[in-house]
Amino acid sequence: MIINSTYGHGGDVYKNEIEQDFSINVNPFGTPEEVVQAAAEACSRLTAYPDPYCLKLRDRLSAVTGRRPEEIICGNGAAELVFQFVQALKPTHALLPVPSFSEYESALAAAGCPVDYYFLKREEGFALTRDILAKITKETQLLMLCSPNNPTGLCIGRDLLMEILQKCRETGTWLFLDECFLDLSDEEKAFSLIPYLEKNDRVFILRAFTKMFGMAGVRLGYGLCADAEMLEKMCVLVQPWNISAVAQAAGLAALSLTGWQEKTRQVIRQEKAYLMRELKALGINVLPGEANFLMLSGVGDLYERLLERKILIRNCANYKGLEKGDVRIAVRLHEENEAFIAVLKEMYHA
Amino acid sequence: MIINSTYGHGGDVYKNEIEQDFSINVNPFGTPEEVVQAAAEACSRLTAYPDPYCLKLRDRLSAVTGRRPEEIICGNGAAELVFQFVQALKPTHALLPVPSFSEYESALAAAGCPVDYYFLKREEGFALTRDILAKITKETQLLMLCSPNNPTGLCIGRDLLMEILQKCRETGTWLFLDECFLDLSDEEKAFSLIPYLEKNDRVFILRAFTKMFGMAGVRLGYGLCADAEMLEKMCVLVQPWNISAVAQAAGLAALSLTGWQEKTRQVIRQEKAYLMRELKALGINVLPGEANFLMLSGVGDLYERLLERKILIRNCANYKGLEKGDVRIAVRLHEENEAFIAVLKEMYHA
Repeated sequence: MIINSTYGHGGDVYKNEIEQDFSINVNPFGTPEEVVQAAAEACSRLTAYPDPYCLKLRDRLSAVTGRRPEEIICGNGAAELVFQFVQALKPTHALLPVPSFSEYESALAAAGCPVDYYFLKREEGFALTRDILAKITKETQLLMLCSPNNPTGLCIGRDLLMEILQKCRETGTWLFLDECFLDLSDEEKAFSLIPYLEKNDRVFILRAFTKMFGMAGVRLGYGLCADAEMLEKMCVLVQPWNISAVAQAAGLAALSLTGWQEKTRQVIRQEKAYLMRELKALGINVLPGEANFLMLSGVGDLYERLLERKILIRNCANYKGLEKGDVRIAVRLHEENEAFIAVLKEMYHA
Repeated sequence: MIINSTYGHGGDVYKNEIEQDFSINVNPFGTPEEVVQAAAEACSRLTAYPDPYCLKLRDRLSAVTGRRPEEIICGNGAAELVFQFVQALKPTHALLPVPSFSEYESALAAAGCPVDYYFLKREEGFALTRDILAKITKETQLLMLCSPNNPTGLCIGRDLLMEILQKCRETGTWLFLDECFLDLSDEEKAFSLIPYLEKNDRVFILRAFTKMFGMAGVRLGYGLCADAEMLEKMCVLVQPWNISAVAQAAGLAALSLTGWQEKTRQVIRQEKAYLMRELKALGINVLPGEANFLMLSGVGDLYERLLERKILIRNCANYKGLEKGDVRIAVRLHEENEAFIAVLKEMYHA
């Protein structure tokens, strides 16, 4: 919860009057009907406390990820696990490439951890490069990466990721890798580190239900880690019942779906291609994102101008390393994207 | 979530095959239909992130409690706020009367805080007495109290509570007062500290939706505190979206009910009187609890014997200061209570 601070994320439909929300990154198909049903059905059994072990959910996640249930921790949304991990590790020195998801900074600040920001370069299209390797030293207790990165949408290539992992093994650095958007990418299998987790690796991989299954309102995420001690440290920091029974039921239903993920990735691939083509035709600078969103830059006051028309996009000016004119848009269904492009055409040709 | 530790609470219907659950303390009427409806309805809007400010909910809570919205913090269940408060304060010395709700100990242990346990006396019926006052010193950074206390059900009388508050003001001690079961007591108005919070008080009052509104599965609690700095410290320790949209919708519906609380308190009063009469007639030692549960002592292996009959009660042997034969039972609806007493009669007269 927030009391005083400014809310620095997309999706703030509570304070703005919005007709079209292109600011959040959930699946354009919304929530699968089966998930809605399972969640609603769980609402008829609210007198019972949630299963503190998340047994059924972790069993299914084990089957899906190929990791043992003991290596899986669930959270009240992936965002909870960011804070929980940082509080459990209590790092004294962290390396953080930026721009990236701002909750890493918030979690590190809450833990009083000094942060070494590594500024991704605009002239390199904000791509993470091998330059990062030299920054990982024995002093680096924690490296936080996001792939695909938010808000750029760029993935970290397999080769570079393996080099980073190897370097972290050598320096004893914890690697926190946020893969929350990876299942929305066509390249999930090529980019995920999940199959490469080894027993003594100091690696924590973050995953979400929020984006792929449109479950932002019910809160469910999970993490994979081969270090049992770290998971135990994380667990004792929170109550036993942090994952609601509704979220557990919704998650189980999501994992039983067939075809949903494929259908989603197909539409995102098509629509992303459409949006990129149209945006480029308008002369707008757009990054080749791998996820279900695109980062545009140099668009001036587009955010404000769209807001006047009750269209919300993500103003990225508050990301470290970005500036006014950097924005992020969601990839929606074709009709919505077309309407969005039509508005842009009007603005850009006017 | 729990990975390795033993689950030390009631309501473990996930690991036991149970037909009657007398181990958890939620409203015997269950969840109000209006709350179930509102929660289920919220499940059709899961693509949106929850309101990070909990604006509507805190406005309603403000009206209900008579405190300003700025003095109200919401949590993913009251239990989250226990951990969040302790992590924010990071006390170096805490005073904790026991037996009491074990999550206080867990939260203090997670924060590495040494605890001075104050053992409530069996021969005094586990009542908190004026003896506690002498234990509150300038070294006491935090005092955690529960009224009605779990598992004894005993409230802290108004006079003693005001003396404790005064002493805490003098010593600079933070008073964490858990009133999660107080709305189930007939004496809510007489015992609550909410109207007495003053601007500079280092007091945090914990409240729940779980018990009165049968909302254990969806997670919603709140805290009241006049110290804005403490609330801000607590907020930055967690993600902005810790209270699900489903919980917020359920909470709003709960606060709009008329008659539910009165009906609940009336039945609990009647049924508690019935249970106490019957238990005493069987020669069972029962504490005069003010909440919707009763603590029995000296009942030997009653827990195990009832479990054989698929009736779950709360074995209190794992509470600090209690022992085998101390158990807690929920006050349920008359038919269930009657059936429960019938089983006991069979056992005790056999």
